[in-house]
Amino acid sequence: MAGEKQQQQPEAELVLLDFWVSPFGQRCRIALAEKRLAHEYLEQELLGTKSDLLLRSNPVHKKVPVLLHSGRPVCKSLVIIAYLDEAFPDASPSCSPPTPTRARARFWAAYSDKDYEAGTWLWKLKGDARAQARYEIVRVLGSLDAELGDKEFFDGDVFGLVDIALVPFAPTWARRCAERESVAKTLYPPEKVDEFITLLKKVYGIE
Amino acid sequence: MAGEKQQQQPEAELVLLDFWVSPFGQRCRIALAEKRLAHEYLEQELLGTKSDLLLRSNPVHKKVPVLLHSGRPVCKSLVIIAYLDEAFPDASPSCSPPTPTRARARFWAAYSDKDYEAGTWLWKLKGDARAQARYEIVRVLGSLDAELGDKEFFDGDVFGLVDIALVPFAPTWARRCAERESVAKTLYPPEKVDEFITLLKKVYGIE
Repeated sequence: MAGEKQQQQPEAELVLLDFWVSPFGQRCRIALAEKRLAHEYLEQELLGTKSDLLLRSNPVHKKVPVLLHSGRPVCKSLVIIAYLDEAFPDASPSCSPPTPTRARARFWAAYSDKDYEAGTWLWKLKGDARAQARYEIVRVLGSLDAELGDKEFFDGDVFGLVDIALVPFAPTWARRCAERESVAKTLYPPEKVDEFITLLKKVYGIE
Repeated sequence: MAGEKQQQQPEAELVLLDFWVSPFGQRCRIALAEKRLAHEYLEQELLGTKSDLLLRSNPVHKKVPVLLHSGRPVCKSLVIIAYLDEAFPDASPSCSPPTPTRARARFWAAYSDKDYEAGTWLWKLKGDARAQARYEIVRVLGSLDAELGDKEFFDGDVFGLVDIALVPFAPTWARRCAERESVAKTLYPPEKVDEFITLLKKVYGIE
């Protein structure tokens, strides 16, 4: 009956379709927590049958995270964060820094997706290709770390868009922000993530 | 002496570092034309030595397009378009539709980058891999065409962000918007683009 229930249109104003270990989903959870926006969380199947609600809400990518606002779907993590800022301007803090810092923030937020791509290659590939993916990850993380430097957060002492976008991807960033409540309750210990990747590798028949 | 001149900091308030056939650069040129923002256009070398100004302005990607606003660099085409809207709110029209259409617009604008990726594979790859890239392109363009449907523009009768983002990538979209002045003066005939890709293939030793 749980399956049937999940396929019904949920009733909360804000609903997040997500999967616990998704770094893209974690971005949205951190943004929702920062803005203290009450919402319903609907855990989705990653390996089993996808819910009708997910397929209907994100027909192009069929992937989490999806935010439903009064039933209307918003897809892609960085789009969701920007949307939350615009749809709930009174729910401070704003995740977007003011212009012109905002353009730099968007640049780095988009750049962090590269880390994820290289990370996916890392466990899917072998031999030279894996070595190349590892090199690419080190390069991307190096750029990100250099951009953070000695600052507390990307924008100095204000936690915002870039930090939300990077925390699930960049270890240095995660450590720097680990004590923040929105981050602490969203991220999982590396062992738990490794355990999950080991499971994924088995499912996909990768050594 | 031209090289030396290009390396100097240009004097205009708005400067675009670009390369004529870059679809990402074309997005920025269309946005600048739509908003009627006077600017200096600095054509960059694609195959030769990159200018110091480009390397200094976009040290991470070392790629066009880069917008310089009073010397301050803004990189990545979609970030540049959003920046122009925010930095010049009086230069109508705004390229960004109002919330909540804006979230859908951002989703589709980001999606169009997938078309470019597949397009690049198409001329770089061979055999099965090329066939797969071709399949991927048809799939992406199909999704884009379905989203446009019979409408004049993505947002009905208002030309905006998604149209700017897609015109250089999606043939249906380019045809639909071809008579718009900002588009007509920015896009090149397919023969000229093909000629350029043939040159690129020769340079990279691809059949």
